[in-house]
Amino acid sequence: MKHTDRVVLELPDWMERFVRDWMHPLVTVEQRMALAVALSSENVAQGSGGPFGAIIVRESDSMLLGAGVNTVTRSCISLAHAEMVAISMAQANLGGWDLGAAGAVQLVTSCEPCAMCYGAVPWSGVQGLAWGARREDAEAAGFDEGYKPEDWCEALQRRGIATRGDVLRAQAAAVLEHYGHSGGTIYHPESP
Amino acid sequence: MKHTDRVVLELPDWMERFVRDWMHPLVTVEQRMALAVALSSENVAQGSGGPFGAIIVRESDSMLLGAGVNTVTRSCISLAHAEMVAISMAQANLGGWDLGAAGAVQLVTSCEPCAMCYGAVPWSGVQGLAWGARREDAEAAGFDEGYKPEDWCEALQRRGIATRGDVLRAQAAAVLEHYGHSGGTIYHPESP
Repeated sequence: MKHTDRVVLELPDWMERFVRDWMHPLVTVEQRMALAVALSSENVAQGSGGPFGAIIVRESDSMLLGAGVNTVTRSCISLAHAEMVAISMAQANLGGWDLGAAGAVQLVTSCEPCAMCYGAVPWSGVQGLAWGARREDAEAAGFDEGYKPEDWCEALQRRGIATRGDVLRAQAAAVLEHYGHSGGTIYHPESP
Repeated sequence: MKHTDRVVLELPDWMERFVRDWMHPLVTVEQRMALAVALSSENVAQGSGGPFGAIIVRESDSMLLGAGVNTVTRSCISLAHAEMVAISMAQANLGGWDLGAAGAVQLVTSCEPCAMCYGAVPWSGVQGLAWGARREDAEAAGFDEGYKPEDWCEALQRRGIATRGDVLRAQAAAVLEHYGHSGGTIYHPESP
């Protein structure tokens, strides 16, 4: 078998323009979540992946440092969850693996992070995490969220990472519900 | 700020030849671990990243499907842990996000997975996970392993993923200990 030595995480073509044309400010967490949820919805509408979107915003000037959508099926890479893609894009944009090195940044994601994305949060350098839909909203749509510690929020807070859930939950959950009802692809290995 | 639309996870140049020249079979878990540990050690010797290596092996024919080393500092991407790189390379080699789709595969990693890599295991499709050094060996060398559920092994087993620790632990831990003593870079954001 021929082995590759590189894997590319790529944003869908529509994203650059979608984000550039987004006219709303990103000052409040609700304003930020509106973009994350819009990305989750547009990703499904464009057929480029699952109903999840995430952004990274710098607190000091509300600048968007990076954005991501779920590209698991498109990239054939299981780690390409929206949060992981957003974190990686922001790190590439800043040229460093510690997003907090030049001031506090917030990760805003349309859905509560799964076990992998939760674990990735401290390594990214973000100082804040906000999510829209709850894990039960994702599970109701057929997604598997994995198994996190019961006190995962407190664990992040002990590391100095502020957490806030239920931001625009109804809007975020509606995207998941629509996806579940329309028979969208659920892309994780079946448990035996 | 100019935004990128792609992030590349790349193996160090030395890896292709190192893996190709590896003459030992990969039938037993100890034989597999010997390669994972050799990668962890060579990654430090080559100056291409932290002391962690991982491989993905197909059970039916012991074929190597992918390999990874920690490339966080080199790639400036915090998710580029050895396990994540190995999983992604194997998925790229097979052309699909479910590594178990064509028969059981095992992820063999030189060190107990951190909270992120633990969470990534079920999404990858592997049916087995083996590790060498324990989290306390990594922590003794200065690394942060994150906060996993107490019963993380049982949680993986409930999903049909076999787990086995302490495989060549002494050899794997020795690489970490040497790295710690030699003042190697520890690349995660400082907790406040």
